[in-house]
Amino acid sequence: MTDIDYMKQALELAKKGIGWVNPNPMVGAVIVKDGTIIGMGFHQRFGMPHAEREALSGCRQSPQGATLYVTLEPCCHYGKTPPCTDAILKSGIRRVVIGSLDPNPVVAGKGASILRHHGIEVTEGVLSEECRKLNRVFFHFIKHQTPYVVMKYAMTMDGKIATYSGKSKWITGEAARLQVQKDRHRYSGIMVGVSTILTDDPMLTCRFNGCKSPQRIVCDTSLRTPLSSRVVQTADQYKTILAACCTDQAKIKPYEEAGCEVLTVSQKEGKVDLKELMIQLGKRNVDSILLEGGSTLNWSALTDGIVNKVQVYIAPKLFGGIHAKSPVGGIGMESPDNGVSLSPPQITVLGEDILLESEVL
Amino acid sequence: MTDIDYMKQALELAKKGIGWVNPNPMVGAVIVKDGTIIGMGFHQRFGMPHAEREALSGCRQSPQGATLYVTLEPCCHYGKTPPCTDAILKSGIRRVVIGSLDPNPVVAGKGASILRHHGIEVTEGVLSEECRKLNRVFFHFIKHQTPYVVMKYAMTMDGKIATYSGKSKWITGEAARLQVQKDRHRYSGIMVGVSTILTDDPMLTCRFNGCKSPQRIVCDTSLRTPLSSRVVQTADQYKTILAACCTDQAKIKPYEEAGCEVLTVSQKEGKVDLKELMIQLGKRNVDSILLEGGSTLNWSALTDGIVNKVQVYIAPKLFGGIHAKSPVGGIGMESPDNGVSLSPPQITVLGEDILLESEVL
Repeated sequence: MTDIDYMKQALELAKKGIGWVNPNPMVGAVIVKDGTIIGMGFHQRFGMPHAEREALSGCRQSPQGATLYVTLEPCCHYGKTPPCTDAILKSGIRRVVIGSLDPNPVVAGKGASILRHHGIEVTEGVLSEECRKLNRVFFHFIKHQTPYVVMKYAMTMDGKIATYSGKSKWITGEAARLQVQKDRHRYSGIMVGVSTILTDDPMLTCRFNGCKSPQRIVCDTSLRTPLSSRVVQTADQYKTILAACCTDQAKIKPYEEAGCEVLTVSQKEGKVDLKELMIQLGKRNVDSILLEGGSTLNWSALTDGIVNKVQVYIAPKLFGGIHAKSPVGGIGMESPDNGVSLSPPQITVLGEDILLESEVL
Repeated sequence: MTDIDYMKQALELAKKGIGWVNPNPMVGAVIVKDGTIIGMGFHQRFGMPHAEREALSGCRQSPQGATLYVTLEPCCHYGKTPPCTDAILKSGIRRVVIGSLDPNPVVAGKGASILRHHGIEVTEGVLSEECRKLNRVFFHFIKHQTPYVVMKYAMTMDGKIATYSGKSKWITGEAARLQVQKDRHRYSGIMVGVSTILTDDPMLTCRFNGCKSPQRIVCDTSLRTPLSSRVVQTADQYKTILAACCTDQAKIKPYEEAGCEVLTVSQKEGKVDLKELMIQLGKRNVDSILLEGGSTLNWSALTDGIVNKVQVYIAPKLFGGIHAKSPVGGIGMESPDNGVSLSPPQITVLGEDILLESEVL
């Protein structure tokens, strides 16, 4: 077993925290002594012990002289928990192998240098690309303090998100829809426009057993969300935020009484200023958003520059229709040269359907 | 080396005939004696000798007692050339290994049974799926006597074939556009609507060195193609067919004088009856068509049921635009259940772009 093998195990452990640790990073740790794994751990939930402490506390024998593999640089500051560097120094660990350094400015290389300063051998950058990729949301959030926004839509092979009459149930098959449910667990928030509420009256929860549902965010400039809608009716069970350009307390009050939070956001060209909304949501620790908007909201999100990633589910069927909606509406770009550039997509086959994922460049 | 290994070599040879042999099938042949390849051949061009004869005539030693590997059942009838079964029997070949049987009703198993009748050992079905796939066009054409139609378009990841102002140069990158050029060589015909001529004035030729250009077919109900257009101006160099619902000889004559062929086709809902057009083109030995239509022609082709395969080039960019065109227009399907079903796509990565290819089910 090499450093890479043990780091792979630590990565697998880290992934178990998916959806539960936000806005913290997913982290996994493995402790190895004389060629045997004597302890393993991962960061399980926000506020709970870090992976290193989990691994140390579960050791089957003394970690004295052992090697610790950890996917992210150990923290050296007091947050919700005391610094992991302290615990490592106290444990007698002789060597620490780190996947990726922590971009968090209060850690950023300091964790590694404290360990070195105390005579511990530190190796950095083992599977660093994989470790960074796992925590793309965390790395973005630490840097920008705004959510990492994933624009998701399902379309036919001729680029339609509905038939001309507005029908869209269903475009993709079960495997693709299951993947969307998993992403609702993974990301902290889910965002739609009020027109989606008016048309579909969706729950926007994760229907997966043993999963968490994201905070529901409705962009609703003039507070048109019906009080009888399912999101409002279930706001006491699932956190629900209405983003509105409205300060009329009489209009706001019934939503608050139903358990919703109403965020007042500036208006921009007659709509919610999405850039400002992202700053407000970032302050509320929403580190990531699955944007399940219609074509109008998608266009606003792109032109306001809040989209980080695009997820396109493509089903092997054709709807046709000059008036059938495609995923991104609005005015659109005048010239192909001004199109939004994306990275070459990562391709996943999901049953009959295909998922293309690209970063916005 | 096994039967499969030799058949793979025969398949590679067969592919060299791509674009040149239509409406004949691509066929490759390898002759093996005492574990050594002593002859190879493929069907090079329509009207030229078949693969078996090519391989036999090039043998470096007597084929007496040898094994012949051939991707398609040898013919047993007089066409442009005498039956290959005769040549095989005369050669002293002892064993024949066949990829796929010939669906052509005048051959269809008869070739194999003639060989067996004369004491030759015949093995059928080696790599039959690959051999059948290679000649999908031929198999379709033999069965239906109408062209195998491939609907091809390039779109952004938000399903646009142009910006709202109609600009589409370029959506895909070089690798994808090169692939389209190869397909123009591969298929016998290329078809567009008159609006494409009016908008882009394209040549519709294959710009590849050493390749052939397809017959150009313009669906032009009322003969609006300008006499000054590039397709008409070059009709003496590249075969050009205008499909029109027009019998006015005064209108037709100038096109014919320029070298175009004007096909008179029935009208169907104000447009060229595409089903009838396919029958007429089949009679002219057009076995395959690359349909590079705009969204209106694509819709007509789908609803007239002439499309066999869909090729979707997808570029990692977004145009947006509620009025930007998507690949299939027309009225469209009212319900998702009535959408045109396609097979799960075959995926090819072409530089930054992706090609999805599906059969119409």
